[in-house]
Parts: sequence; structure tokens; C-alpha cells
Amino acid sequence: MVKTEMLTFKTKGNCDVVNITDEVTRAVGESAVTEGAAILFNVGSTAGITTTEYEPGLAQFDIRAAFERIAPEAGQYEHEKTWEDDNGHSHVRASLLGASLTVPIVDGRLTLGTWQQIILIDFDTRTRTRTVICQIVGE
Amino acid sequence: MVKTEMLTFKTKGNCDVVNITDEVTRAVGESAVTEGAAILFNVGSTAGITTTEYEPGLAQFDIRAAFERIAPEAGQYEHEKTWEDDNGHSHVRASLLGASLTVPIVDGRLTLGTWQQIILIDFDTRTRTRTVICQIVGE
Amino acid sequence: MVKTEMLTFKTKGNCDVVNITDEVTRAVGESAVTEGAAILFNVGSTAGITTTEYEPGLAQFDIRAAFERIAPEAGQYEHEKTWEDDNGHSHVRASLLGASLTVPIVDGRLTLGTWQQIILIDFDTRTRTRTVICQIVGE
Repeated sequence: MVKTEMLTFKTKGNCDVVNITDEVTRAVGESAVTEGAAILFNVGSTAGITTTEYEPGLAQFDIRAAFERIAPEAGQYEHEKTWEDDNGHSHVRASLLGASLTVPIVDGRLTLGTWQQIILIDFDTRTRTRTVICQIVGE
Repeated sequence: MVKTEMLTFKTKGNCDVVNITDEVTRAVGESAVTEGAAILFNVGSTAGITTTEYEPGLAQFDIRAAFERIAPEAGQYEHEKTWEDDNGHSHVRASLLGASLTVPIVDGRLTLGTWQQIILIDFDTRTRTRTVICQIVGE
Repeated sequence: MVKTEMLTFKTKGNCDVVNITDEVTRAVGESAVTEGAAILFNVGSTAGITTTEYEPGLAQFDIRAAFERIAPEAGQYEHEKTWEDDNGHSHVRASLLGASLTVPIVDGRLTLGTWQQIILIDFDTRTRTRTVICQIVGE
């Protein structure tokens, strides 16, 4: 069985870390899948998906600081010369983080750890409405 | 067909790189799947999964040095103020590396390269017993 | 249904960013899958797969600069002492980027954004012929 939902999230940009676990959990619950996986995919090239312990220290500060080391906001980006925009660092960060995450489902539940949440990180420089594909495959 | 196993590994922490290829290969062999994929997922938010050529230089030194540049162990982390613990860098590294990896199966075998092994990297600051979900889907 | 293709790409190495979207799109179109996912996996331990807006600024300069910060080409790598070769940085970068990407298929099409392409990044220090497994699963 394959069941696909388009989830949407309003984001603030600038490394906004959004906890999307509840929406994915709901989609899994509404599907009839008890054993399988949730394939998550961010549509667009300035955001990505991963997991973390969702608490303010990590979500608002520590993750941001690491991406600032990898691709500083104030750096020089050829991408910005191509389009005369300001989000070169957003693209680079998103490519490094990755657009997809696959979480197994066992006994009808996501196999996340107790302190592990699914997050969407929006690296763009403005508010956005993001689409995350949530595709549930299995039996 | 979907077949799910919980694999467990004792880890030493502090960027311990563990070669989990043999356990995944065994699980694939014991399933009846000849064409499909092995979905691997680390349960918990201070470890991740990827591939590398598993040899001591990369596993014990070079990968560790890169994560030290991205999220230094001695850095300041708001996460540590939240919980009064010492593993802020562990969380940041794990989020960047990612919790899931999907490896196709063709003719009953994982499509890894000759010098490519599946590794679990434990970034936590102490010994742990890790659970990796190994879910085999296919025909 | 599971349909697997081995795609091959000639690459130049040294952080060569190759747009593989057309080949994956063709494979999806030739399969009978209308709802499911394309599981992509790079065989080998010195290249990886992700998405980006494929334009020259990002592809030739900005992504490269970020990986140079994470694992500098001129750095010291224990891997190079093990094998007396020169691609320690290539391995570290590939492990960080990751070998697999899963893109959902809806109505027979990949759910990529308008400005989002699938890329293979070859970090090795020489020309290579790369194999990417493109496995299409679904209904």
C-alpha cells in the first residue's frame, strides 16, 4: 500500500527549526499501515529534513551555529551574483542537510526515540509556506 | 513484503564509528527479499548512519576531525544549559549526519561498493547500547 | 512493484556536481509506477547524492567552498597514510553528504520543486565512471 499526503508548514526562515512530528504521526495513524515506512521529502532547495531532540537550546541556537560555521550567512556566494538575491548560504546548507528522511513504522507507530523528533529546517531568508511530502508505504 | 529487525550495538561514544555491514547483510540474507531495499534508521538523537570505506584512518581519525570542525566538543551549547549535560555537540553532529540510510537490494544482495561499508557513528559522550531499525522491503 | 536500473555517469572528480535529474525522470517514466518513490544510491565511498538548484554559481563554486571548510583538500588525513593516496578529504565529504536519497513519485512524476534538481557530487581526485542505483518502488 502507498498513501501520500502533502503536509504544509508556515516557516519563518533563517534556520527556522520546525517540529513536524505530530503531523507525520497523524498521517501514519490515519493510514492503515502497521509495518512499513514514512518517506519524508522537502519540496524546494532551501530547506531540509532531519531529526533532533526538539528543545529550544538545540532548535534555536546550537543547530544554527553549526550551519553558520559550514556556510556563513555573511559569506560570498556566486549564487547571489547569478540571481541578485541573498540566499546562497540557504541553498548550500539545504544541500548538505538533505531533502529526504525515511522513518520505519512498526506496530503502526514511527520508530522514533523518546527524545527524537522529526524537524524541517528552513534556511531561506524570508517566511515561506513549505510542502513536505509524507508518503507511507507498507502493509 | 516487509520484514523488520531491531539490531543492537554496544558503542563507546565520542564519535565511535561502528561497522554494521555484517549484521545488515545477515538480515538481508535471512529475508526472502531478492529485489528491494534495506531501510536503516538510528533510534535516538545522538548517533547517525552513513557509509564509508571502513579502515582505521578514516574511522578513528579523519571523520572525527571533520565533525570537530562542524561542532567542536569544547564549544558553547545552549542545549547543555537546558539539561546541564555535556553532549550538545553530539546532538548537533547527529542532526547533520542524519538518522536514516536506504540501501537497495539486487539479486538478494546489498548494492554496496567493494570499499563501502555501512557505519553507525555514535556521537554521545558515554557508552551506549544503540538500536538500529533494519527494515527490508521488496519482493 | 520494484524496478531497478543501474545509471552510469562519467564524472571529473574534485567536487564535480552532476545533474542526474533527467536520467532519473526517464527511469520513472519508463516504469509503470504512478505512486511510490525513487530510491537513489551512490555505489562507492567518495561520492554522494543530494538536491540543489542546479545553476553554475552553486554547482561550481558555493557547494565546493562549503565542503572545503568541512574537509579541506590540503588537510592532513590518516586515510592517506593508510593507502598512500590523496583522497582522504573525498571520503570524509562523501560520508557527511550521504549515499542515498529517496524522492516520492505522485501521479507518475517526481515531487521535486521547480528549482530543485537531483545531483551526484563526485569528491574523488580523478575522473570516474559512477554507478547510481535507481530503484523505483510503488504501484
